[in-house]
Amino acid sequence: MATKDSAKDATASWRRIEPLELTPILEAALEGFYDNGFHGTSVREIARRVGVTIPALYYHHQSKEGILLALLEVSTSDVLARAHTAYADGGDDPRQQLTNVVEAIVLRMTTRSRLAALEGEVRYLSPENRQRYRVVRKGVEELVLGIVTEGAERGVFSVADIPETTRALLAMCQSIPRWYHAEGELTPAEVAQKYAVIALNTVGCKPSRKRAR
Amino acid sequence: MATKDSAKDATASWRRIEPLELTPILEAALEGFYDNGFHGTSVREIARRVGVTIPALYYHHQSKEGILLALLEVSTSDVLARAHTAYADGGDDPRQQLTNVVEAIVLRMTTRSRLAALEGEVRYLSPENRQRYRVVRKGVEELVLGIVTEGAERGVFSVADIPETTRALLAMCQSIPRWYHAEGELTPAEVAQKYAVIALNTVGCKPSRKRAR
Repeated sequence: MATKDSAKDATASWRRIEPLELTPILEAALEGFYDNGFHGTSVREIARRVGVTIPALYYHHQSKEGILLALLEVSTSDVLARAHTAYADGGDDPRQQLTNVVEAIVLRMTTRSRLAALEGEVRYLSPENRQRYRVVRKGVEELVLGIVTEGAERGVFSVADIPETTRALLAMCQSIPRWYHAEGELTPAEVAQKYAVIALNTVGCKPSRKRAR
Repeated sequence: MATKDSAKDATASWRRIEPLELTPILEAALEGFYDNGFHGTSVREIARRVGVTIPALYYHHQSKEGILLALLEVSTSDVLARAHTAYADGGDDPRQQLTNVVEAIVLRMTTRSRLAALEGEVRYLSPENRQRYRVVRKGVEELVLGIVTEGAERGVFSVADIPETTRALLAMCQSIPRWYHAEGELTPAEVAQKYAVIALNTVGCKPSRKRAR
């Protein structure tokens, strides 16, 4: 548990993750990309999984790459909105802001692991689409960067390199879909709380310093 | 710079990374997998890149998956050997052991980024081969786990969850190939030193506590 406040507030809206509403095409593409990778999934295979013709599929999406981009954008917008709500919920305390945002990101990594795992396919986007996606994703990075910067300036965190520490924090969260399985021992909430504590260490702020567990 | 000792010892053998000797088939497969992913690279395409026939290729490797496994094993044995030398170089000090091992891992992530990026293809291995690969990779995890455990027991590190912190440390290093480019501003040594400092924070050990910078 990160802090007493966050425990009290275990029902905050950003902690509840309902199934994401995807169109049948996006749902089928997500399955295909997860099972066989972007290059291992043909447009024909996606159309087959949805039960539509290939022209019908192209009516909605310009290309297979367009489908991947659409999925990445849905995914990133979702995590961005949650992270912002979690941040706002942290009041004026960088510790609480950071633990909330890390929890929000990890909850989504564990609950929507197929979508989160798509991150590994980003390198197959064309340079322009990769750039477009990066702009969307930058929102999450900037949010965490802002918290780490503010915490360091106020002496709450102790960090040698603020941007690199931010990158390291995001990396540890993003790698979770590689090993997390819903059938495993840990619930999403448990993983989220563990990473909130690790994140406080990473920014040089011990959770025990202010409030004992 | 992690500590004065590591600066003095900038020429340690585990810090020098010579080009890895790969067979022409493995070299061609690595290029293909990096450019188009495991599923996006056919055995025919690998044979074409090497300039051999498909039967000749199958003479050396049972399958495309066998080639991926061979690459992953070469890659992991290389990092394992370096990490162990770096560890031994850290003497009896968990701080120095950890910064050395993190530096060794990051140096390899930045210098051999194509090979390191293969990690993302592991999920396409069959369950048996994934298990076989995990056994090889476990060596690196166990080395870091041992250092974090020892440091925590001796009160040098302050960590709430030792195995999860170890996983987080490895994840932040493993994500480096996603963004690191040899043409960028940072040299491999600079990235390695930044991550050594971040790692000390992550295990709740400030580098400034013992020796001022």
